[in-house]
Amino acid sequence: MVLDRYAKRKNTTGKKIEIIPIPLIKDIKPHDPLNVLVFKAIKASRKKLVDNDILVIAHKIISKAEGRIVNLRDLEPSSRSNKIAEANGKDARMIEIILNESKEIIRLSNGIIITETRHGFICANAGVDQSNVEDGYNNALLLPIDADRSAMKIRQFFKKRTGKKIAVIITDTFGRPFREGQTNVAIGVAGIEAIKSYIGLADMYGKQLRVTKIAVADEIASAAELAMGKSARVPTVIIRGYNYQSTEKKSQISKLIRPKTQDLFR
Amino acid sequence: MVLDRYAKRKNTTGKKIEIIPIPLIKDIKPHDPLNVLVFKAIKASRKKLVDNDILVIAHKIISKAEGRIVNLRDLEPSSRSNKIAEANGKDARMIEIILNESKEIIRLSNGIIITETRHGFICANAGVDQSNVEDGYNNALLLPIDADRSAMKIRQFFKKRTGKKIAVIITDTFGRPFREGQTNVAIGVAGIEAIKSYIGLADMYGKQLRVTKIAVADEIASAAELAMGKSARVPTVIIRGYNYQSTEKKSQISKLIRPKTQDLFR
Repeated sequence: MVLDRYAKRKNTTGKKIEIIPIPLIKDIKPHDPLNVLVFKAIKASRKKLVDNDILVIAHKIISKAEGRIVNLRDLEPSSRSNKIAEANGKDARMIEIILNESKEIIRLSNGIIITETRHGFICANAGVDQSNVEDGYNNALLLPIDADRSAMKIRQFFKKRTGKKIAVIITDTFGRPFREGQTNVAIGVAGIEAIKSYIGLADMYGKQLRVTKIAVADEIASAAELAMGKSARVPTVIIRGYNYQSTEKKSQISKLIRPKTQDLFR
Repeated sequence: MVLDRYAKRKNTTGKKIEIIPIPLIKDIKPHDPLNVLVFKAIKASRKKLVDNDILVIAHKIISKAEGRIVNLRDLEPSSRSNKIAEANGKDARMIEIILNESKEIIRLSNGIIITETRHGFICANAGVDQSNVEDGYNNALLLPIDADRSAMKIRQFFKKRTGKKIAVIITDTFGRPFREGQTNVAIGVAGIEAIKSYIGLADMYGKQLRVTKIAVADEIASAAELAMGKSARVPTVIIRGYNYQSTEKKSQISKLIRPKTQDLFR
């Protein structure tokens, strides 16, 4: 059939991609063996990983397993934190945590605090969150210290345990300038090129393409969110059938972070 | 089984979502009957629409069918366009088109022009593009005038032709401040609430959720891009199995556009 031949030639497989939710049975506690629990959840869902699957994981369970929880009662806010909190109607202890997690404040207005995190992400509250945390009135959850590394370790675990070569993407939900609503984005990546480059490639009329760099890791994170939801226990999703460029290179997430000097909005 | 019961209770179906590519046989020309050609392409892919499918369409074929093509040779750039073009090493005729399509220039630096389009989108070049257009050195493709309306018409066509109630999302590929790479976003929406609101809902520990508004229309657009690619003839994708909130309300896209007064980056 003409269509199938065309699709093949163009390296679009013509095959569907699947977004498969993997519910967890119980919430993750600090120092839980996350790898093993995700492995068991996949099994309990009567699924099996296959080569080139992408395992997408909400950062929250990574942060919990890695013990990235701060008890607000243990904190003594600085005078700077107290000042910002007062001016913005916030809890000074939360401001203290946010500043600790940040390189700099990008915007501070109407009670919204947007910072650059130590990782280089620009997001509200430095990604610090009190929802879906046990005792969320007193505990705050931080982003993983190095989510690329967390992703790589999970990838290696599954290679060893199942023999399958997969990619891993760790996600958070960020707001965007100019557009309403939040979307899931990648904050840690292993085994997949975060950016798909079309640089130098021609369009179907032979002219060079305008769109040259697609942030596929973010698109995969967004696709996964559709099966995750927010208040349910589906922090893990398998994306199957997406024909991506695999890589062994570390530090994929840095490819998604725009250098300050090249950003028109700072 | 515990997992299945849990998944059901939480309104996550536990079922997978599918991203199904629908290749087109030929490129779309101005005033082609787009609806019929997409209908035929679905059939040629041996697929059938079912209720609640989401048909995702790259805006390019909508713009082409709606004749939103400008021939650069027909243009007489203004002195303002000439000035901007000269200062930025651009074609003055392209600048002329971009300004015509824009309400205002948001950033103009290093040859990058970011404007607010007449629709309210903030994007490079007002969405005007010369790739994947026939004779792309002389022709430029504009965004649809009202992509919500285009989406609604396609939705109505398929309701009439197949009896199925679907949603339609029209997409473009935009860059983002702070993050490298581009992602697919929605520029026209029909039959689905563009934003999924969690306002007032509790997390799994009973605490109010921080993340309150998910831009699902954008996440669906991003998911679809994974099956579209850039240089192939797959401008249409079916998203199947996503449990969304349907709506008959018009002007969904306005829900994704942040009002100027509430934007911290303008």
